[in-house]
Amino acid sequence: MSSTLADVSFCIVGLGLMGGSLAAALSRAGCNRVIGVARRQETLARALELGYVSGGTLDLAEGVRQADIVILATPVRDIIAKIAHLGGMLNSGALVLDLGSTKVQICAALDHLPPQIQAVGGHPMCGKDSSGLEEADPELYLDKVFVLCPLERTTVASLDLCNLLLSSIGARPLLLSAERNDELAAAVSHMPYLAAVGLVNAAAELAGTDDLVWQVAASGFRDTTRLAASDVTMMLDILLTNRQAVLEALSRTQAQLSTLRLSLEQEDQNALAALLLTARAQRKELYP
Amino acid sequence: MSSTLADVSFCIVGLGLMGGSLAAALSRAGCNRVIGVARRQETLARALELGYVSGGTLDLAEGVRQADIVILATPVRDIIAKIAHLGGMLNSGALVLDLGSTKVQICAALDHLPPQIQAVGGHPMCGKDSSGLEEADPELYLDKVFVLCPLERTTVASLDLCNLLLSSIGARPLLLSAERNDELAAAVSHMPYLAAVGLVNAAAELAGTDDLVWQVAASGFRDTTRLAASDVTMMLDILLTNRQAVLEALSRTQAQLSTLRLSLEQEDQNALAALLLTARAQRKELYP
Repeated sequence: MSSTLADVSFCIVGLGLMGGSLAAALSRAGCNRVIGVARRQETLARALELGYVSGGTLDLAEGVRQADIVILATPVRDIIAKIAHLGGMLNSGALVLDLGSTKVQICAALDHLPPQIQAVGGHPMCGKDSSGLEEADPELYLDKVFVLCPLERTTVASLDLCNLLLSSIGARPLLLSAERNDELAAAVSHMPYLAAVGLVNAAAELAGTDDLVWQVAASGFRDTTRLAASDVTMMLDILLTNRQAVLEALSRTQAQLSTLRLSLEQEDQNALAALLLTARAQRKELYP
Repeated sequence: MSSTLADVSFCIVGLGLMGGSLAAALSRAGCNRVIGVARRQETLARALELGYVSGGTLDLAEGVRQADIVILATPVRDIIAKIAHLGGMLNSGALVLDLGSTKVQICAALDHLPPQIQAVGGHPMCGKDSSGLEEADPELYLDKVFVLCPLERTTVASLDLCNLLLSSIGARPLLLSAERNDELAAAVSHMPYLAAVGLVNAAAELAGTDDLVWQVAASGFRDTTRLAASDVTMMLDILLTNRQAVLEALSRTQAQLSTLRLSLEQEDQNALAALLLTARAQRKELYP
């Protein structure tokens, strides 16, 4: 393969927000051979019309047959299901990368690909609360962290190719084990999603007896609950394939809420202030 | 008093984000007599320089002496403390309004003002996670809900004057009892703040053993935890003066998280999906 990506043949499986944005970014970066695989003809037509792909098909086997790099951009359990069928479809030496948010189960599935296939797990730390091709943005990955999880089989050349790909879309690579990705993502992504869901459902409970609840909701509620609008198929797959790490993150957050509760129940102003000040300092350090 | 506000004499006590923004909005709306009361001379100088006030003083009694409308814009417990001293300082017939987020204790304090003083509790549903005069914005109140809590003593004329004030800054009045304000605000504002604090402190706990946590935090974590950056003095006062309603909102949210936890522990996909779909539909309805 050449040291630039112009001649590399890509196949992006799934043209939703993540896959569509990647196709758009690669095409904008000068990649001429970007094939999209979608479930619906209209999606392919629209991706072609937008110039995100150079061709498309509804047939996975046809799409991946000639690809140098196959990128799986569907929900996590769909990625796992597709990997099981990919082995016989791929060029020898093809590289499989995915965009799924949980990596332990996906990397385990990738491990079972035939040995002549290269593979790396991927987890871009970006997204939107809206989904679908129309939401795709060629700059979605720009300056964002993109976790790469090498497998035992992953060669230096394959990792270099991934880094070249990330560089062409402006993403910042971060090498992690699949286990570590899943634990960290549970804490800063999957748990915040559950908190947003819990806040909305708790407020809805009150709205059952007081219909003015939503009129009083302002920008704080809007931002804190933004993730609750995420695509449910995507999130359900994430939660169910990262169950243990999510439960641990949930335990930590539940314990923090119990501690906050106790200090408020006891009107322990010093303890409560200490908890609030710690969080504020941490948040300010993270987002100055 | 005239039917416009141009000749009304205002005194805004506290020139932070909320008071500074109100002063800026009133001045922009053509009010010529806006006196600010602050703790520091530099704040007064800066507010004058920015054209937010027409005059200022460090002395509460001097500031409120000639005011037709006094607006208290400091943290809740400071508002309550100041109300106790206001009675003897005010013009007969002056109107006291406040911007505190919790209203039961403030309105109870306002009830003890001398009978010739008019008073209305106020709670603007807007803000920022940053505080101080430099963050003030004359458009902060524009199109935002502004809760008004009339007292027993509140006359129609006083409420009309409040509505005129709100209209001049572009805010949308919502009449609520103090009790109802506090219950609703606990659900959509104070509880989301506690959730943000809990999420940050839980992630920080993990960061104690894995220093890459913050590198993986993306826009979802940023938005969900935005409120954790709020001013702690302000939030501590809010939580401690709205303890019972916040504890009830906390109970509802903790129950929702326990329900989510159970469905995930049991891998009950249908139950989990139902919870996520309910939250998503509600959130999408609220913010289409």
